[in-house]
Order: sequence, then structure tokens, then C-alpha cells
Amino acid sequence: MGEAKRNSSSSSSNSDGDIQAQVAKAVEGVKELQDSAASFISTTSTEEQALRQRSQSLDSSIRGLRSQLYSCSPARPWIPTSFMDPLITLFLEEDLQRATCVLADGDAASFLPGKAQGGRFLRMFLGPITVRSSSKDIQLKVKEEYNAYRDRTALLFLLFPATLLILRSWLWDGCLPTFPVQAYQAWLLFLYTGLALRENILRVNGSDIRPWWIYHHYCAMFMALVSLTWEIKGQPDCSQKQRGVQLFLQWAMMQGVAMLLQNRYQRQRLYTRIALGKAKRMDVVWGETAGVDGQLWLLCPILFILQGFEAYVGLQLLKTALVGVASEWQVSFCGVLLVLMAVGNFVNTVQTLMVKSRFKAKMKRSKSKQDL
Amino acid sequence: MGEAKRNSSSSSSNSDGDIQAQVAKAVEGVKELQDSAASFISTTSTEEQALRQRSQSLDSSIRGLRSQLYSCSPARPWIPTSFMDPLITLFLEEDLQRATCVLADGDAASFLPGKAQGGRFLRMFLGPITVRSSSKDIQLKVKEEYNAYRDRTALLFLLFPATLLILRSWLWDGCLPTFPVQAYQAWLLFLYTGLALRENILRVNGSDIRPWWIYHHYCAMFMALVSLTWEIKGQPDCSQKQRGVQLFLQWAMMQGVAMLLQNRYQRQRLYTRIALGKAKRMDVVWGETAGVDGQLWLLCPILFILQGFEAYVGLQLLKTALVGVASEWQVSFCGVLLVLMAVGNFVNTVQTLMVKSRFKAKMKRSKSKQDL
Repeated sequence: MGEAKRNSSSSSSNSDGDIQAQVAKAVEGVKELQDSAASFISTTSTEEQALRQRSQSLDSSIRGLRSQLYSCSPARPWIPTSFMDPLITLFLEEDLQRATCVLADGDAASFLPGKAQGGRFLRMFLGPITVRSSSKDIQLKVKEEYNAYRDRTALLFLLFPATLLILRSWLWDGCLPTFPVQAYQAWLLFLYTGLALRENILRVNGSDIRPWWIYHHYCAMFMALVSLTWEIKGQPDCSQKQRGVQLFLQWAMMQGVAMLLQNRYQRQRLYTRIALGKAKRMDVVWGETAGVDGQLWLLCPILFILQGFEAYVGLQLLKTALVGVASEWQVSFCGVLLVLMAVGNFVNTVQTLMVKSRFKAKMKRSKSKQDL
Repeated sequence: MGEAKRNSSSSSSNSDGDIQAQVAKAVEGVKELQDSAASFISTTSTEEQALRQRSQSLDSSIRGLRSQLYSCSPARPWIPTSFMDPLITLFLEEDLQRATCVLADGDAASFLPGKAQGGRFLRMFLGPITVRSSSKDIQLKVKEEYNAYRDRTALLFLLFPATLLILRSWLWDGCLPTFPVQAYQAWLLFLYTGLALRENILRVNGSDIRPWWIYHHYCAMFMALVSLTWEIKGQPDCSQKQRGVQLFLQWAMMQGVAMLLQNRYQRQRLYTRIALGKAKRMDVVWGETAGVDGQLWLLCPILFILQGFEAYVGLQLLKTALVGVASEWQVSFCGVLLVLMAVGNFVNTVQTLMVKSRFKAKMKRSKSKQDL
């Protein structure tokens, strides 16, 4: 022990000057680093500013040229009003389309101003931090993770309510206990909050997700929150009082199946579109399409049935509230919300399909023109 | 109408070649922009990588020198074990301290790896997006906004439960209705989620916030969530059944007062510390201190009283659960959580005070040495 102490003391006195030199070196190194970091940051931000201006002006000039080529009449936006040779118009349009893709998806994309610069929802939860990443790798990672999250979620979406319903008839004698249902609702609240946050982040990072699907998740968040405050137990005639919960769980199961199908379809379609050069990698879904139509005829009816069932559940809830079986405000609130969500979903699905068929008509027309 | 049409057609045929040239120019511009953006991104990332390596190696060498200067004994970390001239040690230590400050707070700071790289909580809600900003301006904006958010929050924290309690005795005859209380609990859930997300973001951006305060907000989130599922009304003897809610609201009011005082104190202290060069701008609170001690003697007793009251409310909840007045699991869960939070708060406040007093003792010692 004494030897060790003597040892350390002698080594420390040996290295006294050494340490002083090392400290001086470190201090010097920090100063140099600080200088180069400062100059790096200032150079970078100047260059970034220049790139930002260039991409913005190019973006607006391309927009201008497009609207010059096509002054869209709202009914038939695919008919050019200028009287140029339609073939030249087509070529010019393709050029502009390609330029837009490069601008919006290439390396310059990170210098274009984000679509919504965060938006109120993100600012409410996160404050004014920037969630836009200029690195394409991170953007793609975010996108991939979003898809993986949706996949995991869809499975749970199917299994959670299915388990509850199975246990209800096998174990719980037709009466759902409070805790598992509330745990499910809390999970829904967390899930929808996460989805809404992620989708907003995707949007900031250049994804073309339709705003309605984000609003839809806001509604779902609210519904989960409200349903948490909703008293579930009703010992005397629980089968009647729990009718709403039961319908809701059945709807959630169907939702799970639809989500699984949708995820598969969207992923395949996105890969096809990327391969055809028609999609940006950050796109989520929707918009015009090409390929994988076979699955669409499976997906569409399921989506419409789901929306119909959503509206039905909402109306059933409203009915139970009006008849007076469960007169809490939560029941009617959830009912109204479900009906609204069903209508919104329906309108948006139809719009998407219309854009698709319009696009196809346009493709056919231009093809037949080229054949002529 | 006919004239306008002819006009537009003639202008369009005039500018046919014009448009083609413009489109070609735009396409060319996009190509050039894409090239310069790509080269900018690759150059920047190479330089960034180099800066990152330099700052990391400097950081670790400074750490090594520090531990060489002071081999900390756990009981008295301020006594150097090397037998150098204490004055030289002091100077060297000050040099290293300054270098650390420059490294951690200067322009090089954005190239140091973030303390927790996001952490699980952020990833759970946001996915793998980077919330670290390399721009000092945005970091400071985030910090300022966090303080502003806390200020706003503290006011609501005082007013919301106060209003509920006042209305309870004036308007509601001693019985709280369900909806306003649940709205309050939903607000708490939203608030604590926002605070926890913001604090995690601050931590990633280099703030020195104590982990306990973040855990504390996780606990509070859970409590708000659980209390939402907690049935409130109890017509026959609501004064007894609502005892827990009432105590909770009173505690929340005190919390509001303490938050207002704390915010004021912390802001003043931070400005003093920044002025003295002892704090980084991203620091939130806590850690060693200097100045503004006058307010601490007002703040400390209030904090301890609050923590005592928190534990009291928790124990009261447990008592009502055990006696059987309100036998729901939510009551005992909230009780246990409140007691845990009170204990954690107490331990962390005492630790902070101990660090403070240690630091003062050290300052006095080195001062008296210099006087000698």
C-alpha cells in the first residue's frame, strides 16, 4: 500500500511538466477546433443559403412553365388549351415531370422548403425543433421504420381485439372486464399519437401523404381519449350496455385485416412505382398509380365494407345514446366521430380512385395519339 | 370571349419556341443544381466526419487529463491526490474547465455525439428521426420555447385546479362533476407528454437536465392516464369518495405556485451563470451554482413542503383504497406513484443541494489557499 502510494507520487512528480504540456496542447487543440468548426458552419450555411435560393427559383419557374403548358380546366385537366403539337407538349411535359422528380427527390430536395415547416401539431408536442433531415439515408430510414411500425401495429390491431372478444365469450361469460378494455384504449391513444407524429414528420421530410389520413389519426386520438373516460362495466345487463364496445372491437379487427392488406399493397405498389421512376421513395401511398391493379380489386371492396361498418358502428352508438341505454356524452361523441371518419374515409378513397382512373384515361389517350 | 381565346392562342403560338427554350433551360438548371447539391452534400459530410473525429479525440484526451489531475476519491472529490503545487493544479484545472466549456458550448459542440442519441422514449413516439440541431440558433430557440412553455403551463397549473375547487364550493355544492375533472386530467396527460418529449429533445441538444425530472414526467404521464379511467362521480356520499380528487387538486395548485417560483429562480440563476461564464446556455437548472442564493431559501422550503404534501396525498389515496371507500385499483396505483414521486423528488433536491454546498466549500478552500 505504502509502496503503491510512493510509486504514484513519484510518477506524478515525474510527469508534472508533462501534464502541463499536455494541457496546453489540449487547450490549443480546442481553440483550433473551435476556429475550424466556426468557419465550417459559416461556409456551409452560406452555401446552403445559395442552394436554397437556386432550388426555390427553379421550382417556381418549373411551376410557371407547367401552368403555361396546361391551363387546367377543372373538369378535364388533361386537355391542353394551347394549340401546340400535342406530341411536343407531351415531350415537354415529360421533361418537366422528370425535372420536378429530380428536384423533389434528388440531392437538391433538402434545400427546398418543407411543405408545412413542422405544422401546429408537431410544434404543440415538440416545440420549434426541426425534424427535417437533409440526409437522404435518414429520411429513408424514417420511412422504412414507419412502414415497419405500421406492419407491427396492424398485427396487434388484429390480435388485441380478437383476444378480447374470444376471452369474452370463453372466459368472461359475455361481459368484458374494465381493465383489459381500458388498456386497449390506452394503447390506441399511444398508437394514434405516434402515428400522427410520424406522419407529420414524414410530411416535413417530403412525403406526399394525403392530409386527410393525418386528420383521421387526430380524430382517432380524440376518440381513444374520450373512450378512456367512458364507463364500461354495467353488471345488471352488460350485454346491452357493452354493445357499443363489442361493435367497436369487431370493427377494430376488420381494421386490422384491412391494414395488413393495405400495407402489402402499398409496399408492392411503391416498389413498382419507384422501379418505373414514377414515385419518390418518400411517398407513402395514394395519388396516381401504375401496376399491381389486381390487388386493388381485393382491397377496394374491403375498404368500402370497412367504411360502411365504421358508419354502422357510429350510428349504433348514437342509437344507444338516444334510446337511453347508455346516456353518457362519450357514447354520442364517439358515435358522431365514427360517422364523420367513415364519411371522410369514403370521400378520400373515392377521390383517390378517381385520380387513378383519370390518370389511366390520360395514359390511354396519349398512347393512342402516339399510335396515330 | 372569342377575342380572348384568339388572343391566347396567338400568344401561345408566338411563344411555342420560347417555351421549349425555357423548358430546356429549366431542365439544364435542375441538372446543374443536382450536381452542385450532390457535391456540396458529399464535401460537407466528409468535413463533418473529420470535425467529429477531432472533437471526439479532444474530448477524450481532456477527460483523461482531468482524471490524471484529480483521481477522485468518492467522499471528497475536490482533494487532488497528486502532489503538485495546488496553485498550478488549480490553474491547470481552470484551463481544462474552460476548454471543456468551449468544446461543449462552442461551434464544435454540434460535432460531439449527443448524450443519449434520442433515447427510447423519443424513438417510441417519433421513430428514428434526428432531433439534434447543429444550428446554435435553433437550439437556443428550443430552449427559450421550453422555458416559455413552462411559464404558460405553470399559470394554467395554478388556475385550472383553483377554478375547479372554487366552482366546487360555490356552484357545485361540494360535488365535482365528471367532465371538467376529466378535461383537466386529459390536459395533464397532454402536458406531461409534451414536457417529456421536449426535455428529451433538450437533452439530445446538449442540455444538462437531470434524468430524474424526465422520469418524473413519465410517472406523471402514467398517473394522468390512469386517473382518466378512474370513475369520479359518487352521488350518495361524494364528499368522501371525492376526497382523493380534492387533495390532488390542492396539491396541483401548490405545484403551480412552486413552478412559477422555480421558473423565476432558474431563469435568473441561468442568466447569472451565463454572465459569469459558468453555465452553458442549454443548461436547464440544477448542478452547482453561484449567486441568487436569496431566492433559494424561499424556494427550498416550498419545494420540501410540496414534496411532503405529495407524499401525504399519496398516502391518503392508499388509505381510502385500503379502508374500502374507493376500492378501484386506480386509487392505490395513483397513491403508490405519488409516494414514489415524492421520495424521488426529495432525494434529487437533496442531492442538488449537496452538490451546491460541496461546490461552495471547494470555492472557499481554493480562495483561502490563494489568499495564503
